[in-house]
Amino acid sequence: MPTFRNLTDTAAFAALKDTTPFDVTGLSPERVTEMRIPLAADLTYSYAATPVNASVMQRLGELAGEQELIAKYRMLAEGAVMNTGEQRLVLHHLLRGQLGADVIHEGRNQREFYVEQQRRVAEFAAAVRSGAETAPSGNRYRTVVQIGIGGSDLGPRALYLALEQWARAEGIDPQIEARFVSNVDPDDAAAVLSDVDFESTLFVLVSKSGTTQETLTNEKFVQELAARRAPGIDLLKQTVAVTSQSSPMATSGAYRDAFFIDNFIGGRYSATSAVGGVVLSVAFGPEVFQRILDGAHAADRAAMEPDIRKNAALMDAMIGLYERTVLGWPATAVLPYSQALSRFPAHLQQLDMESNGKSVNRDGEPVDYATGPVVFGEPGTNGQHSFYQLLHQGTDVVPLQFVGFLDSQLGQDTEFDGSTSQTKLNANLAAQIVAFAVGKDDDNPNKRFAGGRPSTLIVGRRLTPEAVGALLAHFENKVMFQGLAWNINSFDQEGVQLGKILTKEVLGGNPGPQLAAYAALLGVT
Amino acid sequence: MPTFRNLTDTAAFAALKDTTPFDVTGLSPERVTEMRIPLAADLTYSYAATPVNASVMQRLGELAGEQELIAKYRMLAEGAVMNTGEQRLVLHHLLRGQLGADVIHEGRNQREFYVEQQRRVAEFAAAVRSGAETAPSGNRYRTVVQIGIGGSDLGPRALYLALEQWARAEGIDPQIEARFVSNVDPDDAAAVLSDVDFESTLFVLVSKSGTTQETLTNEKFVQELAARRAPGIDLLKQTVAVTSQSSPMATSGAYRDAFFIDNFIGGRYSATSAVGGVVLSVAFGPEVFQRILDGAHAADRAAMEPDIRKNAALMDAMIGLYERTVLGWPATAVLPYSQALSRFPAHLQQLDMESNGKSVNRDGEPVDYATGPVVFGEPGTNGQHSFYQLLHQGTDVVPLQFVGFLDSQLGQDTEFDGSTSQTKLNANLAAQIVAFAVGKDDDNPNKRFAGGRPSTLIVGRRLTPEAVGALLAHFENKVMFQGLAWNINSFDQEGVQLGKILTKEVLGGNPGPQLAAYAALLGVT
Repeated sequence: MPTFRNLTDTAAFAALKDTTPFDVTGLSPERVTEMRIPLAADLTYSYAATPVNASVMQRLGELAGEQELIAKYRMLAEGAVMNTGEQRLVLHHLLRGQLGADVIHEGRNQREFYVEQQRRVAEFAAAVRSGAETAPSGNRYRTVVQIGIGGSDLGPRALYLALEQWARAEGIDPQIEARFVSNVDPDDAAAVLSDVDFESTLFVLVSKSGTTQETLTNEKFVQELAARRAPGIDLLKQTVAVTSQSSPMATSGAYRDAFFIDNFIGGRYSATSAVGGVVLSVAFGPEVFQRILDGAHAADRAAMEPDIRKNAALMDAMIGLYERTVLGWPATAVLPYSQALSRFPAHLQQLDMESNGKSVNRDGEPVDYATGPVVFGEPGTNGQHSFYQLLHQGTDVVPLQFVGFLDSQLGQDTEFDGSTSQTKLNANLAAQIVAFAVGKDDDNPNKRFAGGRPSTLIVGRRLTPEAVGALLAHFENKVMFQGLAWNINSFDQEGVQLGKILTKEVLGGNPGPQLAAYAALLGVT
Repeated sequence: MPTFRNLTDTAAFAALKDTTPFDVTGLSPERVTEMRIPLAADLTYSYAATPVNASVMQRLGELAGEQELIAKYRMLAEGAVMNTGEQRLVLHHLLRGQLGADVIHEGRNQREFYVEQQRRVAEFAAAVRSGAETAPSGNRYRTVVQIGIGGSDLGPRALYLALEQWARAEGIDPQIEARFVSNVDPDDAAAVLSDVDFESTLFVLVSKSGTTQETLTNEKFVQELAARRAPGIDLLKQTVAVTSQSSPMATSGAYRDAFFIDNFIGGRYSATSAVGGVVLSVAFGPEVFQRILDGAHAADRAAMEPDIRKNAALMDAMIGLYERTVLGWPATAVLPYSQALSRFPAHLQQLDMESNGKSVNRDGEPVDYATGPVVFGEPGTNGQHSFYQLLHQGTDVVPLQFVGFLDSQLGQDTEFDGSTSQTKLNANLAAQIVAFAVGKDDDNPNKRFAGGRPSTLIVGRRLTPEAVGALLAHFENKVMFQGLAWNINSFDQEGVQLGKILTKEVLGGNPGPQLAAYAALLGVT
């Protein structure tokens, strides 16, 4: 049974603070060749341009060992109560496959439960795609609209956008377009649905509790819009729910069907559950969704490797922790050189900041070291023409996580000025890594690049369903390892509660004086 | 003539470091009522929940005075060489109106030059919208595609999305849809153009230099795609250029028409020039674009006010500098409670990080204090279900900039559980401000909110063209005041150059050894 201790109670952390980091201005071609780890699904993780040398690597490995990270990952995968705050298991890995012993909870084999839901989702999606399942109008479904917020939105949306053009290139047929409504801002739903044909649109209503205020409000909004635009339509008959079995959305029996998750799948870890499964299987086919799961499972298995030199997620986690807690860098940028990953940074922002933005350890005691960083990002090469200025020459160091692919998704390309677009894209990516790390001197300090700005790179052959699944799971596992090393609970989110309580006070007409003043300023009376 | 000196050479900065900040857990309703400043276009700036008390305010005012910020703003507006690195004037304010004396450069009245371009853009856009100007096919234009990157993309795109639903609500006719191609990733252009009818699409090619690699590559890509999809089409005849008069794009005479900017309009400050003007005037009509300019000019004029207590941009700038350089907080989040502002944070990210992510002063000498912060953000309420956890309970304080509106753009709304969506949206916003500032104690430290997390709020009546113009200019002026107070040059971007040079080395086949190693890893040989 592993022991849980704060980071500051480990010998490896103390040793790490006394170790001199590698100065990445000394980046060598040998490092690029040697310092990489196969991840899964044709992805490779490169950490040549990070502050890691032999001594740092030694200490990072010792830290992973002393904090028993692999043993704790195994505990988690085998059903220990790792969400200590809410006293829950943490089972998103089981959505993708079995990693260890069966998890039996209250007599139920959890893996079997998830697989059964996947089978039901696959059957439903296949029926929609074949036309066996039609809208009540008799029309075939052409559009699927997901209504959900937070983890019920960001992960599924990022995955959908990641594969939309890939599906086109592969000739996936039929092409059912997915859209997403999340914000309680009424302009959001109105805009997303402005040109939707309600008589050929399937709705997926996603809320684990069945009580998410934004989602239920948007459901009502959509129903009223439908009643105006397609009078007489009964939207419930073309809406499926994704929720927990005991929620009001499940027990009402009001919807065409319901697919289930449970409390052991956290919102930000739910993209590979029915939360992402229904919309992605309807849009691309259940076999494509299965390929995402396969890629994720391969990354989950790779993360079980005890040797940090062969475990990309563990290495990535320990380097990130070193940069954040020892070297003191407060933010991390995620920079995919792939337009299809345009919303992947937003998903990772939630995944990382909601999981590890904590100030207490897993037992609820305050910690006295920096935990999760601010995470942000946009696709390259756009960022190069925007915020990279600060990353190159600003007064703070911001570690970078690059993602790139050898081939484009569509394979459509053009040659201009002696090279293709894809070649230019990757030439830019290579150039940035070296520019950040090595820098360049100049007599004019304004044109001087100090360098010393570290980055990692995940490179794949092409952004396929397996690759995006592996990418998703890699970051989930990285965040998990960091949380375990910091000895925090990465699986609750008490920080979102106070805002909900105060919102109710405003809407209930009993706000405190400061709140009443702001409500008045905002026209809420 | 104002004196330029580093922040650390001012008495006010030293005094500010010795001043005790206001603890925002003591937020009172009186502060909410009193600490607000009318901005422009029905916008109000509230700074009740910031670390400002009477002493801090006094020092911030002294700092603005000692650094002669208003006088320097006037210098800039009247044509001083404020972009010292590139020895250029900085004239984006002139795009919106005259703020002081005429700016005559090499015999040309600059305001007249910009107005003349605006007149030409307006005339062209009106012809497109009336059908007097058609595609070479004889079709009326239904779509306008902007090809540009960085400032030629983010600002215009943010403004377009901000007003797309507003235009629908107002019944703006015709509705010409705008799309944007930016990334050199070939999948980007292919996806954006996948369902475009080339025979009714106008292209706007934007590059100040006329040599931007990504933009010229995308132009070629689009031409080849058009040749495949609409054989025989001559795309040049339905493409207009936005560029400088001396650029190859202007002198070639290859395009249907060309509209001009010059070196005194920086990319990230160009949304109110022809860079944003063509696409926005074609999409919404030149009179709507003029309303954006009017809102921006009103904010520019408001920023001329010498009394910091009456100048929202100056107050916002000094508070941000205080939080960044004195209190040491490294990042800022921009959180609009309006889905229409979904890409506004990305624009502000460029505006702020590219302008003030600098380590040398305006004379090229290194500075020894923190300059521009990391800027990121997403629309609320989505962020509440995502990264707000870290903002509430993480180990770092992240100052927040909220934006909200009394009314939605579309005015379509629904009542659920006793309140409308718009009411819920703003109740959430009020609740978050108070939750971040005041916090809440709890016996369980995991449910404890320390509070003390500051925020500002810009609140408007409705997101109109005037409001979005004022919002844009407010942040431009905030960033300008901060750069002047830090004594840096906010108008160059030398930090983007090294990446371009190294990219050329890769594409030219002569990379150094580290670069060659990364190029090989990325399949560029």
